[in-house]
Amino acid sequence: MTKPCIICCAITGSLPTKADNPAVPITVAEQVESTQEAFEAGATICHAHVRNDEQTPSSDPEKFARLKEGLEKHCPGMIIQFSTGGRSGAGQTRGGMLPLRPDMASLSVGSNNFPTRVYENPPDLVDWLASEMKTYGIRPEIEAFDLSHIHQAARMYADGRLVDSPYVQFVMGVKNAMPVDRDVFDYYIKTMQRLLPDSEWCAAGIGKDQITINEWAVSSGGHARA
Amino acid sequence: MTKPCIICCAITGSLPTKADNPAVPITVAEQVESTQEAFEAGATICHAHVRNDEQTPSSDPEKFARLKEGLEKHCPGMIIQFSTGGRSGAGQTRGGMLPLRPDMASLSVGSNNFPTRVYENPPDLVDWLASEMKTYGIRPEIEAFDLSHIHQAARMYADGRLVDSPYVQFVMGVKNAMPVDRDVFDYYIKTMQRLLPDSEWCAAGIGKDQITINEWAVSSGGHARA
Ligand SMILES: [Zn+2]
Ligand SMILES: [Zn+2]
Ligand SMILES: [Zn+2]
Ligand SMILES: [Zn+2]
Repeated sequence: MTKPCIICCAITGSLPTKADNPAVPITVAEQVESTQEAFEAGATICHAHVRNDEQTPSSDPEKFARLKEGLEKHCPGMIIQFSTGGRSGAGQTRGGMLPLRPDMASLSVGSNNFPTRVYENPPDLVDWLASEMKTYGIRPEIEAFDLSHIHQAARMYADGRLVDSPYVQFVMGVKNAMPVDRDVFDYYIKTMQRLLPDSEWCAAGIGKDQITINEWAVSSGGHARA
Repeated sequence: MTKPCIICCAITGSLPTKADNPAVPITVAEQVESTQEAFEAGATICHAHVRNDEQTPSSDPEKFARLKEGLEKHCPGMIIQFSTGGRSGAGQTRGGMLPLRPDMASLSVGSNNFPTRVYENPPDLVDWLASEMKTYGIRPEIEAFDLSHIHQAARMYADGRLVDSPYVQFVMGVKNAMPVDRDVFDYYIKTMQRLLPDSEWCAAGIGKDQITINEWAVSSGGHARA
């Protein structure tokens, strides 16, 4: 039996604005419309950030609630994944939308450098976000920006801080973090098979790298991202 | 020809106090004495932190100056490596002793988690420390707490932010960072050979892991740490 191919669509992200690309959906209505197109084209997971009216990243639970409502209505059956990434807030505000019980939420389990700053995920915040996801029955998508993050996720599954069957996303191509590198990509997969044998994984690149990484992912048994 | 085995001795570190172990050298005089013993036993590099009188980590250039003076007198020819690690200060104070021109200095090129906090090495600080090391003719020892740090070092050597022949230390066994893992250790070496073929490397474990890691290192062509 072939494993059905999961296509994960990331709507909006946390950074691009309409100045970069007039087609970037900013309001919740625009986000729902754009996701519906992706859903009809076959996307099965929607990885979602929300924005303030001035287009800056937000972690406002009220906006996430309206987005979830719209997606449930217009994309029935689509898996909704909220971002708890650090661009949209600091500390526990990053998880303020988790009581809305999305199907999934992203979870960074380690820290790393970003283009101009440190992407800070202190151990106590990671543990708190993980425990909130447990409380609300949310399946985490582990964001692996580096190799040790896969090891950390495996430890957290082993000691019960994380439950469910693991789902890991390899993130490559962010400046000052892990570059787009085929050898590392293959070693990530090998590491998943060794440490988390019953897991799924997907891979994300930034901008033009996404096409390269999708080719690698699809040909290696992972999920693609559109 | 056999490559001579370099033994790197870390004196004091940044954390243990006399309460943990009465033998921990704290004052500069104690540090010099303890390093001299290691030097006479064959150690060739001294990786040094300094301490305040209350035993807390310090980055006081005056203390580093006295340490360097003592080591040059009592351990002639020993390679002196100052730590620019983050436990002893924040921001540029971490590099305040570099004008003393030690032979080497440690350099973290990425960020990661430590047992209870984020080990922050923001990109601009990394670049500043690297440029100070260039200015003062200091050879960096890259501290690789994760795989992407080796990639980042390779980029910095390629674009001239770092010069000299690369020297990388793999650090394993710090909680919430990379665990002690033989498969990763071998992949680190493979990555070094691929990205930095003319380099040297050594490996550090924490506490009891040091023995394991030394065995791996010596049997794989790396340097040992005592
Ligand atoms: Zn995904
Ligand atoms: Zn995201
Ligand atoms: Zn060393
Ligand atoms: Zn040190």
